[in-house]
Amino acid sequence: MASASRPAASETGDPLLLTPGPLTTSKSVKQAMVHDWGSRDAAFIAINRAVLEGLPRIIHGEGEFVTVPMQGSGTFAVEAMLTSFVPRSGKALVLVNGAYGLRAKKILDVAGRANVVHETAEDTPPDLAEIEAILTRDAAITHVFAVHCETTSGIRNPVEAIAALVKRLGRRLLIDAMSAFGALPLDSREVAFDAVAASSNKCIQGVPGLGFVLARKDALAETKGAATTLTLDLFDQHAALEKTGQYRFTPPIHVIVAFHQALEEFWAEGGVAGRGERYAENARILIDGMAALGFETLLPKARQAPIIVTFRMPEDARFVFQRFYDALKDRGYVIYPGKLTVADSFRIGCIGDLHARHMQAFVGVVGEVLDEMGVGLKSAA
Amino acid sequence: MASASRPAASETGDPLLLTPGPLTTSKSVKQAMVHDWGSRDAAFIAINRAVLEGLPRIIHGEGEFVTVPMQGSGTFAVEAMLTSFVPRSGKALVLVNGAYGLRAKKILDVAGRANVVHETAEDTPPDLAEIEAILTRDAAITHVFAVHCETTSGIRNPVEAIAALVKRLGRRLLIDAMSAFGALPLDSREVAFDAVAASSNKCIQGVPGLGFVLARKDALAETKGAATTLTLDLFDQHAALEKTGQYRFTPPIHVIVAFHQALEEFWAEGGVAGRGERYAENARILIDGMAALGFETLLPKARQAPIIVTFRMPEDARFVFQRFYDALKDRGYVIYPGKLTVADSFRIGCIGDLHARHMQAFVGVVGEVLDEMGVGLKSAA
Repeated sequence: MASASRPAASETGDPLLLTPGPLTTSKSVKQAMVHDWGSRDAAFIAINRAVLEGLPRIIHGEGEFVTVPMQGSGTFAVEAMLTSFVPRSGKALVLVNGAYGLRAKKILDVAGRANVVHETAEDTPPDLAEIEAILTRDAAITHVFAVHCETTSGIRNPVEAIAALVKRLGRRLLIDAMSAFGALPLDSREVAFDAVAASSNKCIQGVPGLGFVLARKDALAETKGAATTLTLDLFDQHAALEKTGQYRFTPPIHVIVAFHQALEEFWAEGGVAGRGERYAENARILIDGMAALGFETLLPKARQAPIIVTFRMPEDARFVFQRFYDALKDRGYVIYPGKLTVADSFRIGCIGDLHARHMQAFVGVVGEVLDEMGVGLKSAA
Repeated sequence: MASASRPAASETGDPLLLTPGPLTTSKSVKQAMVHDWGSRDAAFIAINRAVLEGLPRIIHGEGEFVTVPMQGSGTFAVEAMLTSFVPRSGKALVLVNGAYGLRAKKILDVAGRANVVHETAEDTPPDLAEIEAILTRDAAITHVFAVHCETTSGIRNPVEAIAALVKRLGRRLLIDAMSAFGALPLDSREVAFDAVAASSNKCIQGVPGLGFVLARKDALAETKGAATTLTLDLFDQHAALEKTGQYRFTPPIHVIVAFHQALEEFWAEGGVAGRGERYAENARILIDGMAALGFETLLPKARQAPIIVTFRMPEDARFVFQRFYDALKDRGYVIYPGKLTVADSFRIGCIGDLHARHMQAFVGVVGEVLDEMGVGLKSAA
């Protein structure tokens, strides 16, 4: 078990990142970046094509869906999706139970797209009856936006049920799957949606710098001229890639090549099933271990995605969060810094190149740190 | 000298990139990426701060200018600059003599910003008298947009004279310095402008994935609420970084850390003076060597920036460009693929981790390839 004198470290000697991303990646993913490529040369074009052609398999969308890459963080992909798919004359219903739902609303506001919000508390999934009522009384609503796993709390939202409802009422669904993509199943043969946004840097375990939108071909074809920016125009981005195999603008080559390596490792681990299973085990070890130390999760188990776990802040005055964070970092573990504003809580991620042994060692170290701080949660719990 | 049996290669064994970017970077720049960092952790925040605080030195803008990073290619930074600085009620005069000027116009059109264009041929700088006439007769024009080195042809535009004129007529100047930044001097103490956009991946020799805008503080302060996107809002991006040291959205950490290393190497080479001198020598060797083989440049020497050189396509029917490109690539040199559409020509870059010995070897290899193709330009010239 790790201790203060022997800090935990990744394959490359770095602290382990127990955050919702950026996350710890494998050494082989990072080493793929120690080369240069011409962005318009055949060698890179072939690597990029393999990435784009492979991604729809993750949602069983081969033939029906295309990948439209969008450099930048996940938010760039979400903004590209919203401002390309929701036309200027459209209107969106935004399902909000955390920061990422709120961010989607902000994107729509800034871009001048009409929208309404259905908001629930951060530990509460959206109310399907309420969604039905809103869609039924407001015929102007063309699109619904949902977040698969809301990283704010780690809650898993019921996208399958939302999709069925939205389809029944004849509207279009757009999904922000960011932190869930590749670990929680999303089967496009059974779940109806027009587009889903995700990123290189979450459960696929690439490095940050590339988002992407998997778009249903016929829905993407309808978006011509809808975008209100040049760089974030998904129709234009896809059309250029189809025509030439090349990007309109210099792509983040090293990030894409690392993502290619990450995808190889993702499939080698068994795709969504294999990766989801490892993360579920990571989450189980974390939650059970922290519970044994006296920590309570914000969410009940049924709503908890195995991505990031929110723990309530202990009431013991000797528990000073910054000291806790720093002591963990000294021992080689970086958790998400800072408290949440709504609930008095903190978050620990369980995605990335982290395995059972890391989570077990981490829980042991949390115990050491509590002892050092003189915090006795266990007896208090 | 390199030959077919012994291909040229960079430090990491890759073909040398004689393109306008992505370009060949040093091994140390790429190796800086073989680590992971938490984006909200102190270690990364310190590296990022060093990058942002150091960049204004390149334009002698310490104290007056701030760096606003914008992930994505240079075009993301240009779109962010235009849509943050030109308000919805503003109007821009766009100076066009190549693809990047045209792209700026397209960005303004898509974003609904009024604009007019002053266009000259790709080998011709803008006409100062014409700019003065346009600005004098159209009081609605608030901003002028100019490209420092138009990568389309490699022409160096007279930003100093343009800036003086724009200032005299009481308008604001926005500069796309992309491929020139760090190699051609731009002194903000003598040249008046509100903002200049550039990228990690040109003359600073980082990897692609990060753009940035150096913005005059007082001008940036006026842009609150002007942007029409969330991700590309420079005011919002800067405000968040000032407040917390953290990015609003997950930054491309590995790209930024590589850029930090690239900046160290940039200053170690003597900054703009040192780097500009090496590129000028690269360009001299390339142009003189190609001239000796019978190739003519599109531009006269006085207008040629030492960034990328456009050569006229030989008229000899035995010169097949794709064969030329492939033969050079087999020998370890990747040039810009494809012809230009306007002039019948091709382009060779001289920026990146390329030195006199590389350019000399390259010219020798071009001679070999011409012999192999049976093209005898030298006698024809």
